[in-house]
Amino acid sequence: MKIIIVGATGTIGKKVTAALKQKHEVISAASKSGDLQVDITSTASIEAFYKQAGKFDALVSITGAGHFGPLSTTTPEDFKIGINSKLMGQVNLVLIGQHYINPKGSFTLTSGILATDPVLHGANLSAVNGALNSFVAAAAIELENSVRINVVSAGVVEDSPAHFDAFPGHIPVRMDRVVAGYEKSILGAGTGKVIEVF
Amino acid sequence: MKIIIVGATGTIGKKVTAALKQKHEVISAASKSGDLQVDITSTASIEAFYKQAGKFDALVSITGAGHFGPLSTTTPEDFKIGINSKLMGQVNLVLIGQHYINPKGSFTLTSGILATDPVLHGANLSAVNGALNSFVAAAAIELENSVRINVVSAGVVEDSPAHFDAFPGHIPVRMDRVVAGYEKSILGAGTGKVIEVF
Repeated sequence: MKIIIVGATGTIGKKVTAALKQKHEVISAASKSGDLQVDITSTASIEAFYKQAGKFDALVSITGAGHFGPLSTTTPEDFKIGINSKLMGQVNLVLIGQHYINPKGSFTLTSGILATDPVLHGANLSAVNGALNSFVAAAAIELENSVRINVVSAGVVEDSPAHFDAFPGHIPVRMDRVVAGYEKSILGAGTGKVIEVF
Repeated sequence: MKIIIVGATGTIGKKVTAALKQKHEVISAASKSGDLQVDITSTASIEAFYKQAGKFDALVSITGAGHFGPLSTTTPEDFKIGINSKLMGQVNLVLIGQHYINPKGSFTLTSGILATDPVLHGANLSAVNGALNSFVAAAAIELENSVRINVVSAGVVEDSPAHFDAFPGHIPVRMDRVVAGYEKSILGAGTGKVIEVF
């Protein structure tokens, strides 16, 4: 299976990449490193990226920025960070990628626990994650040629200790469980699912 | 109670306005009619609107456009319609409005059933509605001075027969039940709630 991983060099992406490389052809992508470069905030960059990648079986997105800060000082401009990057970046990987993916292929996006279990300063990411969860359910009933789509929603992960203080009472999720969530989406048969790894 | 209703002239807005006017001071707002005009896609317009409205107890938003069309032909530009209008328009009414609202006031936004029960051609609105549902849960834990926030998520409403064909098998919701959903948010004590009226 030919699998493209956008965000392959990130905390989660490198573990998912290492696991999938054992049995599959993996093309790593990131903004500045990897086999291919893509800026997910630019539709022109996404188009060029897919043209360069060629036909593929799975697109995995584990990327996207958001704003983290007090609601009382969050401006509309701050809020756009997550909208333009983690939300529209990933949505546009699907809207454009649906014209390049092989039949029976799959898209796997990344949301996160803040969609359903908010923390202080996380309203932008809560909104973005909630949008992604609902988007995959809707896209799943329309994608053609048996193409599937799911989203992995993980809690704070054990490899990101810098984030622990922002998630009081959250038990960091083991990386092998997070990797398994992506494998379930890519190698399983489900579609329209929010794969929760809490 | 001084209540501002943005989208007061719409299908739902006019019924909510009529009900609340019986016992409250209601200021109607819309893009081109009503007591005040506001373009929710412009942060400058929202700022000017709040300055003109003065202090208030409840901001009710029943407005915002989205894209409705096949996923296979939906472009990133199409998708921005709902992001910029129904999502960011309503989020910005809160981000800016939090600095004008009275203590113990409330924000009531509008999402919709597509967040959790998608239909063909509705992916943009599903994403937008899902974002709004998660946003209010996150904003509720941060709003200061006991300000509350909820979102009403209604199914297709009986006064919108033009939409019935797009929602096969959905039973149109009675308008009095929809109005009650808004009253629960505005006049009740809950916060961070998705008030489902299906």
